[in-house]
Amino acid sequence: MGTNRRNFLKNTALFTLGGLALPQLTYSNMKGRFPTPGLKLTFEPYDLQLKHVFTLANSSRTTTPVMLTKIECDGFTGYGEASMPPYLGESQKTAGRFLTALNLTQFTDPFRMEEILEYVDEAAPGNTAAKASIDIALHDLLGKIMGQPWHKIWGYSPGNTPYTSFTIGMDESDVVKQKVDEAAPYKILKIKLGGPNDKEMVATIRSATSKPLCVDVNQGWDNKEKALEMIHWLKEKGVEFVEQPLPKNRKDDHAWLTERSPLPIIGDEAIQRLCDVQDAVGVYSGINIKLMKCTGMREAHKMINLAHASHMRVMIGCMTETSCAISAAAQLAPQAEWADLDGNLLISNDPYEGVKIVDGKITLLDRPGIGIREI
Amino acid sequence: MGTNRRNFLKNTALFTLGGLALPQLTYSNMKGRFPTPGLKLTFEPYDLQLKHVFTLANSSRTTTPVMLTKIECDGFTGYGEASMPPYLGESQKTAGRFLTALNLTQFTDPFRMEEILEYVDEAAPGNTAAKASIDIALHDLLGKIMGQPWHKIWGYSPGNTPYTSFTIGMDESDVVKQKVDEAAPYKILKIKLGGPNDKEMVATIRSATSKPLCVDVNQGWDNKEKALEMIHWLKEKGVEFVEQPLPKNRKDDHAWLTERSPLPIIGDEAIQRLCDVQDAVGVYSGINIKLMKCTGMREAHKMINLAHASHMRVMIGCMTETSCAISAAAQLAPQAEWADLDGNLLISNDPYEGVKIVDGKITLLDRPGIGIREI
Repeated sequence: MGTNRRNFLKNTALFTLGGLALPQLTYSNMKGRFPTPGLKLTFEPYDLQLKHVFTLANSSRTTTPVMLTKIECDGFTGYGEASMPPYLGESQKTAGRFLTALNLTQFTDPFRMEEILEYVDEAAPGNTAAKASIDIALHDLLGKIMGQPWHKIWGYSPGNTPYTSFTIGMDESDVVKQKVDEAAPYKILKIKLGGPNDKEMVATIRSATSKPLCVDVNQGWDNKEKALEMIHWLKEKGVEFVEQPLPKNRKDDHAWLTERSPLPIIGDEAIQRLCDVQDAVGVYSGINIKLMKCTGMREAHKMINLAHASHMRVMIGCMTETSCAISAAAQLAPQAEWADLDGNLLISNDPYEGVKIVDGKITLLDRPGIGIREI
Repeated sequence: MGTNRRNFLKNTALFTLGGLALPQLTYSNMKGRFPTPGLKLTFEPYDLQLKHVFTLANSSRTTTPVMLTKIECDGFTGYGEASMPPYLGESQKTAGRFLTALNLTQFTDPFRMEEILEYVDEAAPGNTAAKASIDIALHDLLGKIMGQPWHKIWGYSPGNTPYTSFTIGMDESDVVKQKVDEAAPYKILKIKLGGPNDKEMVATIRSATSKPLCVDVNQGWDNKEKALEMIHWLKEKGVEFVEQPLPKNRKDDHAWLTERSPLPIIGDEAIQRLCDVQDAVGVYSGINIKLMKCTGMREAHKMINLAHASHMRVMIGCMTETSCAISAAAQLAPQAEWADLDGNLLISNDPYEGVKIVDGKITLLDRPGIGIREI
């Protein structure tokens, strides 16, 4: 990257569609040399290269668009990220528009997080991933100012993190066997069901491994009685819980299922933000919290407290993301019963290094903020 | 205080009944000279001298017993306090017993707050004030290590604090007039009702001031229809809300009243801890959170988030306390709709200085931890 561009990046908010490289900036040399009129936000689109083709019902793709953000203040830099799988409606263009319209320089004290994030949230409806990219960068910044990682600031014990599940995409029997072999370090595997051949797929993976499984149905089942029958069968096959079995708007049917199910039923698509948590009481046994749908770490933290106070369990999940958003979510992992934080393991061009998976377990680092470094 | 006692205090947990003076200790000189095997807890009973005789239905008193705590780690000292009005069941003796039985030296990392406070909470049932004295000292310690006050760590804007109410004890008309004159800086006055002469007392204070009032009934009314009638009358007299009108176990009657009341109905005695907040939904419009009943800042913080997520309002209240527990509670004040933090203003021997009331408004200091200093 040329010097001119670097100088440009130092002084302006950047929005270049298709930019693939991360600017290697340090702003610490600016400390004390310029007045700090307020929080300085910069951002850049980045395309995550997937190691394997990602196939959904109607499409397949090899990249995931993200927006990488930075917030600077008093010589510290916080890193953030918005991950925007196309089917969720946000894009680098919408995020760029949202972030460009923000005026964070009006805030001279980064500690006024509640006020800053309320301003960001009220700037426009939706845009939850773009909002999360501000929330994460601000948390990283504040953690660095305080010299502590967020799992410590929140009072969590880093050793309490759960194992992360690792998703095995369905395929021919010998391909599945190979994928299961590659997933050797992971203690719990996730499979996506909800199609016509669910039992066949479970049989395929069971022919390759006896590890505990979890199942994500992505709203793919339609009949509650059949769902219950299937869940009983899945329990026999060593499945530990089932995510979003029925369409998200069918609250009564999920409540019916949760009451009778021998396995925990987790709400995912039905649970976006804090206001959805209380609606989940009596409907689900637990909720899947993802930074990209709930606007970030601050709201996720509140959701966990609310879910636990309501006797629900918590999964902390992710999209395809760099180590930035994954390390941010991992700060919350010691309070979660389950984790599904494999998003950074699925890409080949992660610009950061952060949280590690050691023997399948999320292993937090004692580094300030969200604990990442540019590679 | 003699040198021998000071040396004694440096090296042992202290528990001397009736001790009136605070040891003026600094432990910073110990840093590096001794290994730090874990959190070091010391504590000392202290009797708060009340400026005015405090009269309840069956008793009156001129002192309130408290226990002052310190937790040291790595050269930092955090201050805490348990305030124990006799009618709530705790005493310097019970707190001393509870604190003596704790083994905090097993914890070498003060940041594991969730784990430490869970251990403390599970050490014995009840003892909520004694538990709060640990919670507050630990928060003060951690805030000092991070170099920030807790209202900043929590992301609050310090300017958002409410006015504090100030309680006017009922008396002869000219004495009340004098008390109201002394309360000139306070924008909202609290009176305690629930006796046979409620209307007379309101008339007495209204003859002395036209300031907004709030009313604490302390479960003193018995009939919900009469309570509703009275609340309509109080609204005409410029009362802003009513605390705990009926006995705390009468949930249905409070729900009936809250549904019909023209003023917010606040639960106080009915709301002790986090687990009580959801029971309050639909029963009260708001809850009064006090550190001494909820075991401290950590649980209070969770209670506020839960109450707001449940569309209830929050009052942050207190007992008769030193500036230690008051400054701890004040860290939460920017998130509270109402505050009743006048406990330190009622005593003549406050060993600390901390949060200030400026023109009736709680004014937070930009000092690490809970922001107090020994006087």
